Amino acid sequence: MSNNYTSNLHIEKAKTSKINTVDFDNLTFGRTFTDHMFICDFVDGKWQQPKIMPYQAMTMDPSARVFHYGQAVFEGMKAYKDDKGDVFLFRPDQNFKRINKSCARLAMPEFPENYFFEGLTTLVNLDRDWVKPGMGNSLYLRPFAIAIDSAIAAAPSDSYRFMIICSPAKAYYKGTVKVLIAEEFSRSANGGVGFAKAAGNYAAQFYPTSLAQKKGYQQVIWTDADTHTFLEEAGTMNVFFRINDTLITAPISDRILDGVTRKSLIQLAEDNDIPIEVRQIKVSEIVEASKNGTLQEIFGAGTAAVISPIEGFEYKDTYYNLPQIEDHSYSSILKNKMMSIQHNLSEDKNEWRYEVK
Amino acid sequence: MSNNYTSNLHIEKAKTSKINTVDFDNLTFGRTFTDHMFICDFVDGKWQQPKIMPYQAMTMDPSARVFHYGQAVFEGMKAYKDDKGDVFLFRPDQNFKRINKSCARLAMPEFPENYFFEGLTTLVNLDRDWVKPGMGNSLYLRPFAIAIDSAIAAAPSDSYRFMIICSPAKAYYKGTVKVLIAEEFSRSANGGVGFAKAAGNYAAQFYPTSLAQKKGYQQVIWTDADTHTFLEEAGTMNVFFRINDTLITAPISDRILDGVTRKSLIQLAEDNDIPIEVRQIKVSEIVEASKNGTLQEIFGAGTAAVISPIEGFEYKDTYYNLPQIEDHSYSSILKNKMMSIQHNLSEDKNEWRYEVK
Ligand SMILES: Cc1ncc(COP(=O)(O)O)c(C=O)c1O
Ligand SMILES: Cc1ncc(COP(=O)(O)O)c(C=O)c1O
Repeated sequence: MSNNYTSNLHIEKAKTSKINTVDFDNLTFGRTFTDHMFICDFVDGKWQQPKIMPYQAMTMDPSARVFHYGQAVFEGMKAYKDDKGDVFLFRPDQNFKRINKSCARLAMPEFPENYFFEGLTTLVNLDRDWVKPGMGNSLYLRPFAIAIDSAIAAAPSDSYRFMIICSPAKAYYKGTVKVLIAEEFSRSANGGVGFAKAAGNYAAQFYPTSLAQKKGYQQVIWTDADTHTFLEEAGTMNVFFRINDTLITAPISDRILDGVTRKSLIQLAEDNDIPIEVRQIKVSEIVEASKNGTLQEIFGAGTAAVISPIEGFEYKDTYYNLPQIEDHSYSSILKNKMMSIQHNLSEDKNEWRYEVK
Repeated sequence: MSNNYTSNLHIEKAKTSKINTVDFDNLTFGRTFTDHMFICDFVDGKWQQPKIMPYQAMTMDPSARVFHYGQAVFEGMKAYKDDKGDVFLFRPDQNFKRINKSCARLAMPEFPENYFFEGLTTLVNLDRDWVKPGMGNSLYLRPFAIAIDSAIAAAPSDSYRFMIICSPAKAYYKGTVKVLIAEEFSRSANGGVGFAKAAGNYAAQFYPTSLAQKKGYQQVIWTDADTHTFLEEAGTMNVFFRINDTLITAPISDRILDGVTRKSLIQLAEDNDIPIEVRQIKVSEIVEASKNGTLQEIFGAGTAAVISPIEGFEYKDTYYNLPQIEDHSYSSILKNKMMSIQHNLSEDKNEWRYEVK
């Protein structure tokens, strides 16, 4: 990506920290923000001076294009602290590449690599005290970019804003997760924007998910829009299925997000001799496997929860329960391995950790 | 829709008008706004007091959900002035129903009918001088609703903002329009949000449209995502095809917006003995018709341009030119009939005009 931007990050520190007002034992995901934020505007065809400043509200014209045409993309990543106080990101290069892929698909300008990394690491360093040690604790980082041009013509904006905001997060335990397999609604189309972290993809899932929730399911597993026969991904997670001893996950496509957790789990499975197949998987295959007792596990994989084991699923008005193999499950084995790497508790032979100094 | 809201519209008038600073002969679509705007927030489970106030920027938290998840819908409608100075809307009930349909699909609360109509008519009345008489002049009205909750969890917002802003518009002439028929990219999926005016639908079209523009086409005509064989709609227009003397347009579905212009043109065709068929139409059918000389016209239909005649189309690397029948074309006949009704120049037997008093 374009590297002809020289670094000139401007830093304005917060006069006081809010950290003492925060109850770190009772955090609601995504509602508390740290003392600083990163901001950089794209105006007149180029990215302007990047800045770190006290976290604050901003002024927007009602005609800002993001409000009207959803020209907005985002990323989700985390910083972890080990017991010595060292702070690490996990594969931030992947998030950087992905946000620029999302930008390209949404006709937004790509963000310069050095601005991204300098902004991100300087910001996390400044708000380092907000990263709490301990398994499951993290600082959730939200890079995002929005169209800010004050004009309501349905065309790409001339100006954009790239920001990073940070929110402390606890271990993410949602209770038991039951899922509904989509038969009518769909998440994305071939030739669409499903592979991008485009803002509009998420709002589109809220209503079908709320219907599933009314039926007692926490999540929807999306299927292909044409036939609803192939399993794709969950709301903000890729999905893995274990039949007998083999783990299976769908290949990425233009409908499916190329999850960092997903690709890391595939690698970890390979590293640990867990048989893993990346291939299309039919709903009928898991229904059959459930009936004949070979379906061992289903789990979601994403930055928020790392791995979220699924207890059962509904498909065409029938509920299928999964066996309880929590202790020696692939989900618990892989989750421990992932989290140990993230929290600097184990060897990192794939070089995924990225220290924030 | 819910009518248990009693009207208590609060009005704060602008101290001075900007109208004299505006060059009405040189307007860029969607960049100039009138003196006032309408605003109403949804907080604590209900719509709060609706307000009209001077047009102004607003303060938003960087974590506002609209920036992250595209939970936003909009409408587009116009006010017209006749030579006596009377001002009319065109079928505003249709836009009202449609924005609430869009809201429901995006898991947003529906807006009360009396707030919508009182807000809209009071606003247009206040900014009445901004509606210029003369064929093709109008005041473009943009109702929209956005998720304003300051929280980045991927779930529906608790709070929302409904607004109406107004922008004076000139007759919309884009020059000749050539279109590219989509073979790879797509606009929406079965079971998706294509039928809604969801913000994210528009950003998703910008990149494929920019590729078409690089090839010399102004618009893309979208086809079904599965097979790319059925013609659906253009970026912000429904599409009509005339083969011999019959006009054909695709039926609405969950992929296609139920356009007010489209449904009005269907009615006008019926009223004027123009043979009209609402049915699926294959790309191969228009290619064939173009080859054998029976394809007479293609035109887009939408609030912005009313009717936008199309000069030719590309499909699978072949360009098909359309005959030039501008004067006695269906597009010019129907456009005149529509605009005469909109500008109060002809009888309105379907009762589409809605006077703003
Ligand atoms: C649609 C979707 N799928 C999958 C994922 C998981 O991706 P990652 O592992 O990179 O967080 C996410 C979350 O970011 C997502 O939004
Ligand atoms: C996707 C889409 N199709 C069609 C239309 C035309 O609809 P209407 O005639 O109501 O303006 C619009 C514009 O509003 C649109 O956004």
